[in-house]
Amino acid sequence: MTTSNQKIIYTITDEAPALATQSLLPIVRSFAAAAGIEVETSDISVAARVLAAFPERLTEEQRVPDTLAELGALTQDPSANIIKLPNISASVPQLRAAIAELQSQGYDIPSFPDEATTDEEKEIRARYSKILGSAVNPVLREGNSDRRAPAAVKAYARKFPHSMGKWSKASQSHADYMRGGDFFSSEQSITMPEAGDVRIEFVGKDGSVEVKKELSLLQGEVLDSMFMSCKALRDFFEDTLNDCKETGVMWSLHVKATMMKVSHPIVFGHAVTVYYKDLFDKHGELFEEIGVNPNNGLSSVYDKIKSLPDSKQEEILQDIHDCYAERPEMAMVDSVKGITNLHIPSDVIVDASMPAMIRNSGQMWGRDGKQKDTKAVMPESTYARIYQEMINFCKTNGAFDPTTMGTVPNVGLMAQKAEEYGSHDKTFEMKADGTMRVVNAATGEVLMQHEVEKGDIWRACQTKDAPIRDWVKLAVTRARQSDTPAIFWLDPERAHDMQLKAKVEAYLDEHDTEGLDIYIMGYNEAIRFSMERLIRGQDTISVTGNVLRDYLTDLFPIMELGTSAKMLSIVPLMAGGGMYETGAGGSAPKHVQQLLEENHLRWDSLGEFLALAVSLDEMGIKNDNKRARILGQALDKATGKLLENNKSPSRKTGELDNRGSHFYLAMYWSQELAAQSEDAELAAIFKPLAEQMTANEQKVIEELAAVQGQAVEIGGYYHADPAKAAAVMRPSATLNGMLESLAV
Amino acid sequence: MTTSNQKIIYTITDEAPALATQSLLPIVRSFAAAAGIEVETSDISVAARVLAAFPERLTEEQRVPDTLAELGALTQDPSANIIKLPNISASVPQLRAAIAELQSQGYDIPSFPDEATTDEEKEIRARYSKILGSAVNPVLREGNSDRRAPAAVKAYARKFPHSMGKWSKASQSHADYMRGGDFFSSEQSITMPEAGDVRIEFVGKDGSVEVKKELSLLQGEVLDSMFMSCKALRDFFEDTLNDCKETGVMWSLHVKATMMKVSHPIVFGHAVTVYYKDLFDKHGELFEEIGVNPNNGLSSVYDKIKSLPDSKQEEILQDIHDCYAERPEMAMVDSVKGITNLHIPSDVIVDASMPAMIRNSGQMWGRDGKQKDTKAVMPESTYARIYQEMINFCKTNGAFDPTTMGTVPNVGLMAQKAEEYGSHDKTFEMKADGTMRVVNAATGEVLMQHEVEKGDIWRACQTKDAPIRDWVKLAVTRARQSDTPAIFWLDPERAHDMQLKAKVEAYLDEHDTEGLDIYIMGYNEAIRFSMERLIRGQDTISVTGNVLRDYLTDLFPIMELGTSAKMLSIVPLMAGGGMYETGAGGSAPKHVQQLLEENHLRWDSLGEFLALAVSLDEMGIKNDNKRARILGQALDKATGKLLENNKSPSRKTGELDNRGSHFYLAMYWSQELAAQSEDAELAAIFKPLAEQMTANEQKVIEELAAVQGQAVEIGGYYHADPAKAAAVMRPSATLNGMLESLAV
Repeated sequence: MTTSNQKIIYTITDEAPALATQSLLPIVRSFAAAAGIEVETSDISVAARVLAAFPERLTEEQRVPDTLAELGALTQDPSANIIKLPNISASVPQLRAAIAELQSQGYDIPSFPDEATTDEEKEIRARYSKILGSAVNPVLREGNSDRRAPAAVKAYARKFPHSMGKWSKASQSHADYMRGGDFFSSEQSITMPEAGDVRIEFVGKDGSVEVKKELSLLQGEVLDSMFMSCKALRDFFEDTLNDCKETGVMWSLHVKATMMKVSHPIVFGHAVTVYYKDLFDKHGELFEEIGVNPNNGLSSVYDKIKSLPDSKQEEILQDIHDCYAERPEMAMVDSVKGITNLHIPSDVIVDASMPAMIRNSGQMWGRDGKQKDTKAVMPESTYARIYQEMINFCKTNGAFDPTTMGTVPNVGLMAQKAEEYGSHDKTFEMKADGTMRVVNAATGEVLMQHEVEKGDIWRACQTKDAPIRDWVKLAVTRARQSDTPAIFWLDPERAHDMQLKAKVEAYLDEHDTEGLDIYIMGYNEAIRFSMERLIRGQDTISVTGNVLRDYLTDLFPIMELGTSAKMLSIVPLMAGGGMYETGAGGSAPKHVQQLLEENHLRWDSLGEFLALAVSLDEMGIKNDNKRARILGQALDKATGKLLENNKSPSRKTGELDNRGSHFYLAMYWSQELAAQSEDAELAAIFKPLAEQMTANEQKVIEELAAVQGQAVEIGGYYHADPAKAAAVMRPSATLNGMLESLAV
Repeated sequence: MTTSNQKIIYTITDEAPALATQSLLPIVRSFAAAAGIEVETSDISVAARVLAAFPERLTEEQRVPDTLAELGALTQDPSANIIKLPNISASVPQLRAAIAELQSQGYDIPSFPDEATTDEEKEIRARYSKILGSAVNPVLREGNSDRRAPAAVKAYARKFPHSMGKWSKASQSHADYMRGGDFFSSEQSITMPEAGDVRIEFVGKDGSVEVKKELSLLQGEVLDSMFMSCKALRDFFEDTLNDCKETGVMWSLHVKATMMKVSHPIVFGHAVTVYYKDLFDKHGELFEEIGVNPNNGLSSVYDKIKSLPDSKQEEILQDIHDCYAERPEMAMVDSVKGITNLHIPSDVIVDASMPAMIRNSGQMWGRDGKQKDTKAVMPESTYARIYQEMINFCKTNGAFDPTTMGTVPNVGLMAQKAEEYGSHDKTFEMKADGTMRVVNAATGEVLMQHEVEKGDIWRACQTKDAPIRDWVKLAVTRARQSDTPAIFWLDPERAHDMQLKAKVEAYLDEHDTEGLDIYIMGYNEAIRFSMERLIRGQDTISVTGNVLRDYLTDLFPIMELGTSAKMLSIVPLMAGGGMYETGAGGSAPKHVQQLLEENHLRWDSLGEFLALAVSLDEMGIKNDNKRARILGQALDKATGKLLENNKSPSRKTGELDNRGSHFYLAMYWSQELAAQSEDAELAAIFKPLAEQMTANEQKVIEELAAVQGQAVEIGGYYHADPAKAAAVMRPSATLNGMLESLAV
């Protein structure tokens, strides 16, 4: 892989996106060439990464470069321009399947060892473990996050608005959160005056010291510590339940056990044992014996009691039933199957569930399958307050109106694991009463400390300085480029945010902010200010930390667009390059199945269109390549037309699919380029193509439709045959010919 | 009356306050003398004003000066320092009674003519008409308003908090207001570039022009015009009723028909005819015949149908009853007597009713006498929004806590009838469709205009420039003196407020605002900002227009103190002097009756204590009279002690009354003065008095208690014999002796 100023790296990933690329990339390459831009691919599929892990076992021809390492290195190159498509976060079964497929194709790679005992097995396992799970994002996300609703998507939502539940002024729904004893109220934060090591220690009542963790911190790095009181949490849950019982409002819990994977399952577990208090009081010992873990939800009870005699099972089921009589009604995940909100911790994920509730008139579903006003319990108050603010706003002003509302893009602090989401390796459930403290390893000075009790959840969190500086720069850049006010969401009541505020103010001084509206506001003030503008059709950039980035890029898009999947997600790399992430829908195995069985690919490449347009535009800006900018802007208009004319892929075989959608994109794109007057020569290049495509629309669509309805073969799932895949994905000779004729 | 830099003018008024003055004034005079301050009285009682109106009919000895005119002139004197006690706003019956009493005392004044036909009668009536009603305030209020909760009162409320209803997060209560078609959405505003005349005209559909009003405006004067759509208003009422029917929330209407005495009765009338639509549809013609006026409430129906045959009356009552079955439950003024919210327009006055509702968990009383969640309907959205903001705030944060909350004092624009409350002479109900316009009389230029329909309510409103400039100065002064942030409540969506904002920004430049926190915010933002500070124990000055002045000086005091009657109300006169208004409880005829029958005066002079302390303090500042300031500050501390020790007057004869309370005030005041170390000589003066008073506490209280329980006589009600009144009000020889001994 070489780096050039005029090169876009287009990632080859897995499954549906990879297939779609077979059809889209030839179009992109043909068009980009007109601006002198080369589009190079970089294969970061699971299969490619597996092959790259064992070069010594492959033939010269079979060997592939370690593209992920190359891409990681490329993030440090100022001219990097990477389009990153969704890829598989491989689970062990997926990895096994990929290995087997490669072995069957003649690649002499080792199988995944069930148990690693020998040194060789350990070595193999170590290499494979680097491929498992979310291995790609940490390597590539060497920048902060810039997410927005592209103009075309926004225009589409305005014209074809999604449904929005009406809000009643008399709604009883609300967010409820702790007023003390939570992470928010105990947060302490320091900034390292110089680089150094710290120890996280637990000091027992007997004076014994247990080192929980040692950290090396950089100069200017921010370190927070905080804890949630177990007792306060349980009292809070009990209060919310009693309040619901009294007011007749349904009870629901909203946490993020998947991401906050150490702390939130514990919180969830307390909710379970408080709601089903009588059950756990009665059967607690038995449950412990049979291995019930309330942190896994009530489903753990159902699971584990299967080992018990029928009569005992019946007794327990009756006791569960009795809890419902005692407690308020609980929101259901699936009322038909009787799956409650407390069944499985991953069923209700706050950043998705709260926007859904707010979009749905502030209601959730009850046991009888009817919508009801709901108390949304979110113990940690730090971010819960913004939902209450939005609920109050909807009660006062009614539901948001997608046809008139503005937009709230986000500039999020994310680089180098800033405000590390979850802080898993620095989160501890207290085994005894005592003191948690952070100590300067060199001097022994106690930097922060908390008195804790058994069961409390203590955690620390790191944020490096360089990402903050870059984040400020990104915010200023975005405010300037979009001529939109930008608000730093920094809460005056959060210790961490006040450390950041000092940095933000200092780093803002490094920029020319003349004529920009840049504010620093607390969370409530920020969301309210943004919402007041929103309903008046005005845009406001939210400049937030990592968690709010995650929450807001669901919350606002779901109001504005009905989904967060249509957001443009850019990672301007700290070294100066850019990474453009596409789609949020995963790599979609079901789509592949449909293609293989019926030769219809329903994958929507909207994310790729959007990312590519920005990639071109930014390449144009960086290299003073005006044509690149014109290409990008024309692509945006083409995408808008595509949405407006409903030329996105249908889910149904026989109708327009991914390939047909690509044709329309190419047609509209060429039309826009032919019609633009900024670069007459460029217009002349695309005029014939535009005319041909317009003239041959019917023919191409027919050719594309003709192939549908029968099974096809592409020579592999994880490692398809490129030639076969290309043949399947490019069945229109007319279209292929027109693209070739463009070659400039 | 002479004016001196070291003189306080203490007004003699009527009834209870005048009696209390007989006891309090000797104390005040004795103490003030120590700072070289003279306390002069100015009799503005109804009786004195009657006598002053007919000098030619009185003997030399009987004649009294025209004190109100003198006071009016004094307001223009920079050294004016006036303590204004509550006085009678005389109704005709009260005036007749005062005249009769004066006649019986040998004053040859004419009787009030029932009908004025002769020139003489007309002249008499004209003179008397100047004494009727609220004749005093317009003369004296030559300044803007400065209202605050004095420290002593605040301390008392913190120590002995009033009850506050708990707020449920699930409360369904809310404010509801029009989203268009109201005064707010149609407001236009201009500032006169130079002095000139304008005409307010109605142009009919046929082109005919009717001049409704001619106005002479000053340079820089702000003139607003706006209208409320009758159709939009009635649709809005119907919507609110349907919404309540659907959600089961009680319906209530909150207007200010007493003050907005032209526009709000019309609004109220529409509420009546919409709520009881079926009734008015059926009997409308009959009602018109018998003179039912819905603007006077449903009580007008009950009144007028008395003339109808019994069977017809019964039919109508049944039809009223049927309306209740059709419509949602309505809030009751008196559920026992069946008096609903729509019975009488003056029963529910928004600035009192909304704070009461918010203090009462957001609930009002239903037909069954139970508290219920309520929709508070306030058609005009301009100010209604602040109540919704506070309701949302209480749902989120719970009820305010008087023991910890801060305070929101007010600096209100009021001078020279700024933003004239009600604008009665410029409010018109449209008799036909057409155009209302404001025209420059000199040029014919149309300055503002609205298309209106029959039934719409159109109004204009004036605000002179000089009061605005003074208001800005007062805000800066208060922010400086109290070291408290000040917020100008100027809404970006109100045309009038944007005219004012330009002026405020310009006039702020005239002051040194270095180190002050002065903000300009929209209403929602301002109240939210203030409330966020309030619950954290922080104070925020609200700098508002006239209507918000009125609303907020009830709203916040009722949360903070449980009443607005304990607020200190200062009118810093534009010419430089100061007027200190005391109490808000009226002049209390029942108190006089109790005194005459049982020799117990329950009048609470707290307002006088508070006003006097500020009067002394400000006199000290203006004249560099340090002793005056020490006296004032000691008086404040004494008032605090009095409140803390519960030495306010009891309502029950036999217990401590107004006179005893005055003794305690004197005792605490002397103790504070003796204890202070800023002025040793002053301390020495008061030390013996403090010691005597402390030693003789029991004796004085016994002497004061001894006289209670039997009838007394003071030689008149409106024009009592000063010697007799003084004797009744100063029955403790020991106290009188001690005060005399102080004479400095």
